[in-house]
Amino acid sequence: MIIDVHGHYTTAPKALETWRNRQIAALSDPAAMPRPADLVITDDEIRETLETNQLKQMRARGADLTIFSPRASFMAHHIGDFQVSSTWAAICNELCHRVSRLYPQHFIPAAMLPQSPGVPPETCLPELRRCVEEYGAVAINLNPDPSGGHWTSPPLTDRHWYPLYERMVEYDIPAMIHVSTSCNPAFHTTGAHYINADTTAFMQLIQGDLFRDFPTLRFVIPHGGGAAPYHWGRYRGLAQELKKPLLAEHLLRNVFFDTCVYHQPGIDLLTRVVPIDNILFASEMIGAVRGIDPETGHAYDDTKRYIEGSAQLSTAQKHQIYEGNARRVYPRLGAALERRGS
Amino acid sequence: MIIDVHGHYTTAPKALETWRNRQIAALSDPAAMPRPADLVITDDEIRETLETNQLKQMRARGADLTIFSPRASFMAHHIGDFQVSSTWAAICNELCHRVSRLYPQHFIPAAMLPQSPGVPPETCLPELRRCVEEYGAVAINLNPDPSGGHWTSPPLTDRHWYPLYERMVEYDIPAMIHVSTSCNPAFHTTGAHYINADTTAFMQLIQGDLFRDFPTLRFVIPHGGGAAPYHWGRYRGLAQELKKPLLAEHLLRNVFFDTCVYHQPGIDLLTRVVPIDNILFASEMIGAVRGIDPETGHAYDDTKRYIEGSAQLSTAQKHQIYEGNARRVYPRLGAALERRGS
Repeated sequence: MIIDVHGHYTTAPKALETWRNRQIAALSDPAAMPRPADLVITDDEIRETLETNQLKQMRARGADLTIFSPRASFMAHHIGDFQVSSTWAAICNELCHRVSRLYPQHFIPAAMLPQSPGVPPETCLPELRRCVEEYGAVAINLNPDPSGGHWTSPPLTDRHWYPLYERMVEYDIPAMIHVSTSCNPAFHTTGAHYINADTTAFMQLIQGDLFRDFPTLRFVIPHGGGAAPYHWGRYRGLAQELKKPLLAEHLLRNVFFDTCVYHQPGIDLLTRVVPIDNILFASEMIGAVRGIDPETGHAYDDTKRYIEGSAQLSTAQKHQIYEGNARRVYPRLGAALERRGS
Repeated sequence: MIIDVHGHYTTAPKALETWRNRQIAALSDPAAMPRPADLVITDDEIRETLETNQLKQMRARGADLTIFSPRASFMAHHIGDFQVSSTWAAICNELCHRVSRLYPQHFIPAAMLPQSPGVPPETCLPELRRCVEEYGAVAINLNPDPSGGHWTSPPLTDRHWYPLYERMVEYDIPAMIHVSTSCNPAFHTTGAHYINADTTAFMQLIQGDLFRDFPTLRFVIPHGGGAAPYHWGRYRGLAQELKKPLLAEHLLRNVFFDTCVYHQPGIDLLTRVVPIDNILFASEMIGAVRGIDPETGHAYDDTKRYIEGSAQLSTAQKHQIYEGNARRVYPRLGAALERRGS
């Protein structure tokens, strides 16, 4: 079984974006604020967007199940206030819930949170509860920078975030650390901000002792861990300078990396330096890089090819990356699979 | 001959830091502002700091010449105004000049600039001129974020920076893109801000068409290019989505990476994905990661070991990385070496 832990509903029906644009326009004209009920998307429209996109690719490439969350770049937590984020998150999460009801074999939801810059994260708990208890979400996406590229929030190790962590531990769900659109012109969203956020989060976790307070808390750092594996020696050395334990003990019981690295040498590095227990298969398809690599003739984001193309992975290790680790890191996913007998 | 293109005077005599602390304290008490002449450092003190640190390591590891610039984390362009940065840059550059006069065989200077947030970069031109014409600087360090982690400057492709680029082209000197201390608590200086800046700069260059305007402009992206080589497929794919030429044509005549990657798998990735013509030997010794790697028993930043340990580099390629490329990318270094017959 092949589980892709990182998919977003990037192909949602156009009506979703139109509704969001109306919501944004209404920030300066509150009378024009659309109601959630104004958004009408049929099951057939949902099916159409998936059958021609994600599901089509999953079938072609041989992935069985995707942990599916709202489009990351559309979270845009920097837009409007908490109420705006809250309404938007509710709509997007409900849509992913519907996807998972239409295709329970292929999609299982992860939740976006109604974060808003300067607003305490505990305000996200009702939406988190709803997504886990009512929608069956198996994870959340946590944005370490709801300001969208201005980085005004405290580090992830700060007590600011603890109310969320307490609930995550209670529900036994991991968070993927995932930023959204950059509104800072210095940072290209998917080429700089995403990767920087991964690197930044990893270093914040090295600096702190978060997992001493939350021994069972788990984070997935997407996009292959940003720059961390490539600079693994640097990070081992910095942890050492900071008098922290070895990374294996300090972080690797709690921190995992996905395989959204879009070329063979990158995946080879990842699987060479990071313990296989800490690597989770993912593609972020259909996402930032949609083209065909002229060097291979295949889609850049067809990451299964790189796992298959690895000379150093055994069959058992591939199984861990494809399925075993995901069942362990996302226990609610594991439980859902067991309930359905797979 | 082995040329290290990335060294900073991190071990300068304590008097330098004391003077700087007085300068910073005087920001709120202008009457207490120290004069440059208050800083007295003898040649013997300079010799002592180098003989026991950088030179000792260069001799032990077998590096011949280091391109030597003021300590990057101490540039701290976000502190004070242009006048404060200007005095500080002049002092630091003069000190590196003195180093190069005391050890002309081993150190050749690169200049820091008196950048200041919100101040036009052309204000740096007099210091740049002085460093090149009077001190023999062969390169500059250009900070893409003088705000120190708030990223308030336009991207490197913006005309904002053009006056500097015009002078760089005129002098035929490259810039190493190098940030300084982060004053944003989200970003650890050497573990996040440095690496993020490298990644950010690379993506800015992909987005723009800077080298159409400056075909001979050259940038060195330090720390192995941040996350770029690890995500080389992502960057090739993003350039493709942006309808840019292949990276070889779009950037690689103008952009180079150093080898400050502190483990064997990282260097193996770098030399596998980036053309050898674009890789310059460097260690950033003595810098961010000063410890001994328990996995190898050698210093993390002894990067020559990783070049030597590479199974894929030929002798000719090692020569390119150690020396040939540096002579080409830093023509004033090449000319200085030829003048001295080496």
